[in-house]
Amino acid sequence: MTAIEAESSGCGAGTAAAPEGHAVHGYHHRKDEHLKRLRRIEGQIRGLQRLVDEDVYCIDILTQVSASTKALQSFALQLLEEHLRHCVADAAVKGGDEIDAKVEEATKAIARLLRT
Amino acid sequence: MTAIEAESSGCGAGTAAAPEGHAVHGYHHRKDEHLKRLRRIEGQIRGLQRLVDEDVYCIDILTQVSASTKALQSFALQLLEEHLRHCVADAAVKGGDEIDAKVEEATKAIARLLRT
Amino acid sequence: MTAIEAESSGCGAGTAAAPEGHAVHGYHHRKDEHLKRLRRIEGQIRGLQRLVDEDVYCIDILTQVSASTKALQSFALQLLEEHLRHCVADAAVKGGDEIDAKVEEATKAIARLLRT
Amino acid sequence: MTAIEAESSGCGAGTAAAPEGHAVHGYHHRKDEHLKRLRRIEGQIRGLQRLVDEDVYCIDILTQVSASTKALQSFALQLLEEHLRHCVADAAVKGGDEIDAKVEEATKAIARLLRT
Repeated sequence: MTAIEAESSGCGAGTAAAPEGHAVHGYHHRKDEHLKRLRRIEGQIRGLQRLVDEDVYCIDILTQVSASTKALQSFALQLLEEHLRHCVADAAVKGGDEIDAKVEEATKAIARLLRT
Repeated sequence: MTAIEAESSGCGAGTAAAPEGHAVHGYHHRKDEHLKRLRRIEGQIRGLQRLVDEDVYCIDILTQVSASTKALQSFALQLLEEHLRHCVADAAVKGGDEIDAKVEEATKAIARLLRT
Repeated sequence: MTAIEAESSGCGAGTAAAPEGHAVHGYHHRKDEHLKRLRRIEGQIRGLQRLVDEDVYCIDILTQVSASTKALQSFALQLLEEHLRHCVADAAVKGGDEIDAKVEEATKAIARLLRT
Repeated sequence: MTAIEAESSGCGAGTAAAPEGHAVHGYHHRKDEHLKRLRRIEGQIRGLQRLVDEDVYCIDILTQVSASTKALQSFALQLLEEHLRHCVADAAVKGGDEIDAKVEEATKAIARLLRT
């Protein structure tokens, strides 16, 4: 990938959408897959409400909470992988100081995931 | 709490509902609060779908994933606290071997939470 | 276990040692096992220093860090299990308000483990 | 950084040491700092043994375990940040398929950290 392609992939923080309606970030290649995963997690959370409502045994509810948390972490890891592959790698190719900012930002995001 | 009260609180695994429709487990005292928390988490997951759909920057999505994971963990901790206070404590009061099984079961649930 | 036995097991916070030199807490039954585990973890940390000193590949070091963290978490879980079985259960048997304080304290300890 | 510099930084997996005794990986710039951190963690683990040996209250030991785990995670994050900044960024600059392998490898390492 050239520096120009890196630029046009729009990995810069804060650019919520590309000017001409293009999807812009690392993860957009798998947008449908991500939305599907998130809908499945939403279904798990609704399932939890049903379990609480039906007075299911606490430990069985905790097992389902663990499953939902794992699914969220797994979604985060996929997003992170794409971010590293696209946005962080692009910053490296472009050269200059941006790579430092991108790596610091990614590390902070990983730290937040670890601390939850 | 007497052994008889402990028995009637129905903390036994597998008893999904009390015979006469009473809520039965440690957490039932706070059922409404739990459902409210879970609905809020469900809203967060729907918010994540919106962020993905609108091509929001990866790192900002990861921050929201961390917030949702934290909310789930916090829900799990509250459930666990009530389980310890009611079901585990009841088993201790009843005497016999049940306390060992309850503590082992609770520890395994905590291990699952830690490993996600 | 009777309330009197519960009392003499010395699970109260802050009592660092029993008056007559008796080991006092839930975990003391397995003191040797715990010390052995901790010495093994200490060895893992020294191993990490060797890896850094020998310029081993970053990812291989991270794998060893994960193993050490897992060993620490596993030690924490064993300690916690014994604490629930002895100190928390004793408080339940004794009756009164102590069980609430013990459960709250244990839950906070679990929260700290989860957040690391 | 040019592709040639990237090559000479020796971030390839499996190269345990540079041919002429040069330190080779992303983290080597901070080797002394890393060793210092690890020695401090080793001290914490020895402190844990003292606490167990002196029959300190379980919950106070758990607090120290959480502190040690946090210190290990923080060490891992620093190592990871340097790995991203040097090895992963170098692979991006070099071009070709290596970036994919590096990103996949880094993501797996992050997953292992999350699951402990």
